[in-house]
Amino acid sequence: MIKGGYMHSNRYDSIRAIRWLGNGVELLDQRRLPGEASYLVAKSATEVAAAIRDMVVRGAPAIGISAAYAVVLASGERFRSSPASWKQDLEVDLATLRAARPTAVNLAWALDRMLSHIPELEGDPVPTLAREAKRIHDEDVAANYRMGELGAALIEPGSGVLTHCNTGSLATGGYGTALGVIRTAFARGAIERVFADETRPWLQGARLTAWELVEEGIPVSLIADSAAAYAMRRGKVSWVIVGADRVAANGDVANKIGTYSLALSARYHGIGFMVVAPTSSIDLAATDGSAIPIEARGAEELLRFAERPVAATGAGGWNPVFDVTPAELVSVLVTERGVVTEPTEARIASLMSAGSPAPSA
Amino acid sequence: MIKGGYMHSNRYDSIRAIRWLGNGVELLDQRRLPGEASYLVAKSATEVAAAIRDMVVRGAPAIGISAAYAVVLASGERFRSSPASWKQDLEVDLATLRAARPTAVNLAWALDRMLSHIPELEGDPVPTLAREAKRIHDEDVAANYRMGELGAALIEPGSGVLTHCNTGSLATGGYGTALGVIRTAFARGAIERVFADETRPWLQGARLTAWELVEEGIPVSLIADSAAAYAMRRGKVSWVIVGADRVAANGDVANKIGTYSLALSARYHGIGFMVVAPTSSIDLAATDGSAIPIEARGAEELLRFAERPVAATGAGGWNPVFDVTPAELVSVLVTERGVVTEPTEARIASLMSAGSPAPSA
Repeated sequence: MIKGGYMHSNRYDSIRAIRWLGNGVELLDQRRLPGEASYLVAKSATEVAAAIRDMVVRGAPAIGISAAYAVVLASGERFRSSPASWKQDLEVDLATLRAARPTAVNLAWALDRMLSHIPELEGDPVPTLAREAKRIHDEDVAANYRMGELGAALIEPGSGVLTHCNTGSLATGGYGTALGVIRTAFARGAIERVFADETRPWLQGARLTAWELVEEGIPVSLIADSAAAYAMRRGKVSWVIVGADRVAANGDVANKIGTYSLALSARYHGIGFMVVAPTSSIDLAATDGSAIPIEARGAEELLRFAERPVAATGAGGWNPVFDVTPAELVSVLVTERGVVTEPTEARIASLMSAGSPAPSA
Repeated sequence: MIKGGYMHSNRYDSIRAIRWLGNGVELLDQRRLPGEASYLVAKSATEVAAAIRDMVVRGAPAIGISAAYAVVLASGERFRSSPASWKQDLEVDLATLRAARPTAVNLAWALDRMLSHIPELEGDPVPTLAREAKRIHDEDVAANYRMGELGAALIEPGSGVLTHCNTGSLATGGYGTALGVIRTAFARGAIERVFADETRPWLQGARLTAWELVEEGIPVSLIADSAAAYAMRRGKVSWVIVGADRVAANGDVANKIGTYSLALSARYHGIGFMVVAPTSSIDLAATDGSAIPIEARGAEELLRFAERPVAATGAGGWNPVFDVTPAELVSVLVTERGVVTEPTEARIASLMSAGSPAPSA
């Protein structure tokens, strides 16, 4: 059913942001959506790293998958240049990729997983590594389907749900994390309406999530990020459902800026706060949220809009693009290995050590 | 010192959004700021109502002042048309003005205050009413200076403060409510930096507040609305300082969408939440926040930006432009008559019945 990175004939999900071409990675340019569906083909690790940095491709799982394919490209290039020293030469490509964006741990996770196969390789590394990258991609999609099932089971019929940023097919190998739960729950008739935060400054909610939901025929109301608390107070929201860029060992969650504020509002209103993330987003080496590097991007994302200045010349800006939600505010963490209610260090350790049943594809 | 609606020679405040011309009201067109400082002259109540509705002029006190001048224009026109029936003919103008925007009570307050003089009027009503409108305007500026003193006294040296929307000279007769407190506190050396929420969807923070602060040389960092909670967590904020469109009898506060979320975050972080509003924004007839009408504007404010669509065709939007913050989340309410700590119905009643010492101009 999964073929070339694309999945066809699934009525709830027809979008794929990443496709492996054999000699390059085709990326749907997310900076131009929803106005234009144009594709960029990255043919080297440097080009993939630039695409990650410039947000052609974004979303923690999608970044990891893209980086895995980049390792295939770089290994092939290094091997062709120097069959004797390619493994050493590859280090610089890995460093470039690793530095592309700091917060999503899936990037390092995918690189480490690819790297773990390199010592045993002899001869042309491409077939083996391409297979592994493809496996990472396929497993991500399968994990999303599994999380969709697990998360949707928690949602009562007739619910309004609120989501932030984009966590759908565009942000992952396909189907989505938080948006995967929403897709599955909607297919089961549990969701009446999705409130999508527009997600400043990059407007992933307006540009990407609204687009995915409209494509699927799921009713979506776009709201200003700052209207979320009021939507909760007005009784419109039963669950807040978000993804994660990195989950620390204690359950603290780094995710798109604004997630923390949603968690605070959800707690005050007694509304469930669901984090949906594959175990590839869990970083046991990060004791808590303070160990997670938070990317700050240029202030021009706030000072300008659509190439037009919106703020007075001379104004500064502070533009952290992620924040950390403390574990105490998380009602459930949904992973492909199971659901962790009120995550703690012990519960997450137990989930992670329970072994990794291969998700059914 | 206050002259023709403009105040000169005050180094902390050189901007005036409203000026009475005798035969019209000159309004700084706030839709075009900060790129362009253009003025619109409204010559009738209908034109003033349109300017309020279309947000040429916005901010609760500024709306009230503009409406007061509109009553002068309408009365003059009705009197010239029909000296015998002008008082009755005026009703339609008052209805048009009253309906211009629903949430800010200053609009009704100013109309009622102007109206209270009409029964006693004989002959040309313009001189008396123009004097009264001018008094409303001058009193507003004086109230802002007084609130600036009272609020600034609460701010410790070295503070970072966070504000939302625009509550400055542009939103008032001059100087500002929350921004007036910030101006005074900065002049006293108490404030190191102002974090200004950009305030979606209309970007009053980016377009107006950043502009006022840059003009005054006050260091300002623009942030996405959704970054406010994270700024608090990072220890950057000692006070959240906002204005109000209407304060209910029990202390519930209707203000720009997003205020409620800030109040929740401030409470969670143990940060003071200060509401700065003249008593003309207090509506004793509204028992609590549920009695305050909350304006919803068109979804296109979210679906489009700078005349460009940003969201997928087919996406809906929910665009409430105010929300209600319950009194329990308000640390202090600063009015020109004094400061109310942890506002309750009894404390607000006591403030309002304590008489109205004319604010010293």
